[in-house]
Amino acid sequence: MEVENGNEVETFVIPVELYQTNRLKTISTLKQRLLEQSRPLEGIILLQGGEEHSRYCTDGVDLFRQESYFAYLFGVIEPGLYGAIDIATSRSYLFVPRLDPSYAVWQGKIEPPEHFKEKYAVDDAYYVDEMTGILKEQELNAEGKALLFLLYGREFENSNENNEGLEDFAADRITLHPVMSECRVLKTKLELDVLRYTNKVSSAAHVKVMRSAKPGMKEYQLESIFLHEVYYNGGCRYVSYTCICATGPNSSILHYGHAAAPNDRINGKFTADQKIIYEAVLKAQKAVMSQMKPGVNWVDMHKLAEEKILENLKAAGFLKGDVAAMMAARLGAVFMPHGLGHFMGLDVHDTGGYPQARNCRLSSEEYKFIGYGKAQRARPQLVKDRARSSRRDGCYFIDPLLDPAMEDPLTSSFFVKENIDRLRGFGGVRLEDDVVVTADGCENLTNCPREIADVEAVMAGAPWPPTSSKK
Amino acid sequence: MEVENGNEVETFVIPVELYQTNRLKTISTLKQRLLEQSRPLEGIILLQGGEEHSRYCTDGVDLFRQESYFAYLFGVIEPGLYGAIDIATSRSYLFVPRLDPSYAVWQGKIEPPEHFKEKYAVDDAYYVDEMTGILKEQELNAEGKALLFLLYGREFENSNENNEGLEDFAADRITLHPVMSECRVLKTKLELDVLRYTNKVSSAAHVKVMRSAKPGMKEYQLESIFLHEVYYNGGCRYVSYTCICATGPNSSILHYGHAAAPNDRINGKFTADQKIIYEAVLKAQKAVMSQMKPGVNWVDMHKLAEEKILENLKAAGFLKGDVAAMMAARLGAVFMPHGLGHFMGLDVHDTGGYPQARNCRLSSEEYKFIGYGKAQRARPQLVKDRARSSRRDGCYFIDPLLDPAMEDPLTSSFFVKENIDRLRGFGGVRLEDDVVVTADGCENLTNCPREIADVEAVMAGAPWPPTSSKK
Repeated sequence: MEVENGNEVETFVIPVELYQTNRLKTISTLKQRLLEQSRPLEGIILLQGGEEHSRYCTDGVDLFRQESYFAYLFGVIEPGLYGAIDIATSRSYLFVPRLDPSYAVWQGKIEPPEHFKEKYAVDDAYYVDEMTGILKEQELNAEGKALLFLLYGREFENSNENNEGLEDFAADRITLHPVMSECRVLKTKLELDVLRYTNKVSSAAHVKVMRSAKPGMKEYQLESIFLHEVYYNGGCRYVSYTCICATGPNSSILHYGHAAAPNDRINGKFTADQKIIYEAVLKAQKAVMSQMKPGVNWVDMHKLAEEKILENLKAAGFLKGDVAAMMAARLGAVFMPHGLGHFMGLDVHDTGGYPQARNCRLSSEEYKFIGYGKAQRARPQLVKDRARSSRRDGCYFIDPLLDPAMEDPLTSSFFVKENIDRLRGFGGVRLEDDVVVTADGCENLTNCPREIADVEAVMAGAPWPPTSSKK
Repeated sequence: MEVENGNEVETFVIPVELYQTNRLKTISTLKQRLLEQSRPLEGIILLQGGEEHSRYCTDGVDLFRQESYFAYLFGVIEPGLYGAIDIATSRSYLFVPRLDPSYAVWQGKIEPPEHFKEKYAVDDAYYVDEMTGILKEQELNAEGKALLFLLYGREFENSNENNEGLEDFAADRITLHPVMSECRVLKTKLELDVLRYTNKVSSAAHVKVMRSAKPGMKEYQLESIFLHEVYYNGGCRYVSYTCICATGPNSSILHYGHAAAPNDRINGKFTADQKIIYEAVLKAQKAVMSQMKPGVNWVDMHKLAEEKILENLKAAGFLKGDVAAMMAARLGAVFMPHGLGHFMGLDVHDTGGYPQARNCRLSSEEYKFIGYGKAQRARPQLVKDRARSSRRDGCYFIDPLLDPAMEDPLTSSFFVKENIDRLRGFGGVRLEDDVVVTADGCENLTNCPREIADVEAVMAGAPWPPTSSKK
């Protein structure tokens, strides 16, 4: 994404104004919070950027990707920087590492702080080893210490020559994180421009994948096509998550595609049962989309999706009995064991929707279940104007979930066993679109074929969007 | 690479025999070392496999890639395992993590230890939490402790419930590392089969890139083509290093392509000067290739390459004076500041050639200069039969190296300033081939056009290899 326009390639250039806007928004939100707490409107926001990492004990360096909070405020693509914002004056600072002269031979020109000041449009830039000195010149509190607002204090964990002396400051590790998380949930116009672009690029890549899929191919070949399309045509070097490119039974593994299950299967079949399940998910998606608008309760939307899926599974003969009773027994979670969606932005599972105090240092398993699974049901989360979220409806036939539910006396009576058994090994269907909640409804940023007829037509080579379409 | 043959895709399947052979070779080499030290031929080799990592404080998980020493002995693609080999009996063990039941929903089927025993052809497999118990059943020393041979003891650094009790063992952290590093330098026939395959795939991808390059394109588009080719056609999901895809002046940045210099430039020019410099590098490469064989001193080869490049720069009017005097003044390092090559294998800069005691925990900068730069010149390293190394000759016009050399009274008289200045901003040329040292010479595994006429022909669409060629 951080590329300039060439003669023949039209890629999106993120304007530095986006980060300036983010800084002003963060300052303003933080000041509001301080006012509410009757605290002085002063102190310094200090964030540590990401560092480059070697792979194990080798000199192989993993491709650097910036830490998201730091990226949000400064847009810096280089590793090893710190950034600060003085709350009282709104002045912004970058602190850049002093690079070894060998960098010029191996990595490229060594740029002075002035270069970063201009490139990232901050008010001042210095070397990291000048940081504590500069920060100590700011407003001091009653004890003669400047107050630093930190995310959970990672900055202090790995003490080194760069952050030596930071312990001389007063540190607030509580206030900043929820402020920035909230800022990141509600997207600005400039951020929506970026998201529209990435959706355009990735929708086109999905269409290309749909067109390319043929029996006999491997799943990883489709992953390769997707990655190539977004990078070659869109300049997107990074993708937000490892491709989940699963066919047949693999499609019931929600996060298939990781290193131990590497996208290596395709069968090309398309059955009547697949149409039934697909339609159930599509109807759930449409029902939710038609109701989503500011003020709607996310848990209600989740329940609506479950209800639609259960209704359709009943109509198709896989379930029997009263749908309201199924809902009361939480049967929907057997077929859609994930949350209805999550916020998106710099991260695929973006800030917001998590219990705040646990946003850091969770294992990924804890995230998955506490974060956007149970927590969203337990702690209603309003969908907000301008927030962006990924809407995903799904229906899967997962043995480790089906087996206990079919034996549980609370739920066993709902299943039509012989029909369910027919779909053992079926896999699952998930439809995942990126949606912006607008003033009076929602806008779907994703533009991929979703109706069965459209999917089949595009896979057979029809143009997308259809030439007669308004899109 | 870890994929099975499909109907239409022919990818290489690494046989488990490769890892079995590596284990036997490691045991045998370790026993030889113990014999030399008059120590008993017993104890247990214990290695910790790699772990999955989240990106910063998010639930985004980086694609897992196995630690190389562990991959060398066991070939395991899953994270979180330990592996052990009993030296006296040659029995091999894997210890697998107990996964949370949620894994079955998100990541896939939870397999029992028996599955890993069969998949990786080890003698026994247990859960990690059974590890210390199992290991304590092995041969005990005089103090009643079993002896563990460890790589630098990483296994003890992050103590957790899995390695609890490991402190009850005697630990040798010195002997195993040089043994395994040496084993990894000399490739087996099975390893060479893998390397031949990866060279075939990546050579074809290079040819595709050469054919696709057109003025107006971005460098990253060529990177994208390369990555797509090796993954789509070769099943290679991982590449050994971030693409260095640099055009024009960027090509003098040896490791261009990292996050802060993201392969985003192409100009399509091909000048007379480029031919001169290219030919100089090609002649150096041919000179070295013609002399490489078992017993040859690597430093001599490096000097030979430098000499050829200096001769050619003199012939083209960029340098003047006596080449022997230039060599004595180490002028070659101004134009080729990297080592002539490095060992290759599981890692792009593989084991061997580094000062052993420093093989771990070096910063990547230290590696670059101490590792295969200065150390190879200071500490002659014999090229060995069956070793595989990357041969790279290069010639660059790097201002931060040229400027001091042109002012240094020891070297300034060699430069023809007006001609050198013409090439400021020229960039550089590097030819990097993967070579196996054979019984009486060497074999080049790389099959890309190298002669200028071939390069131009292939870029214009000619077939490669040429239809009349024996290759």
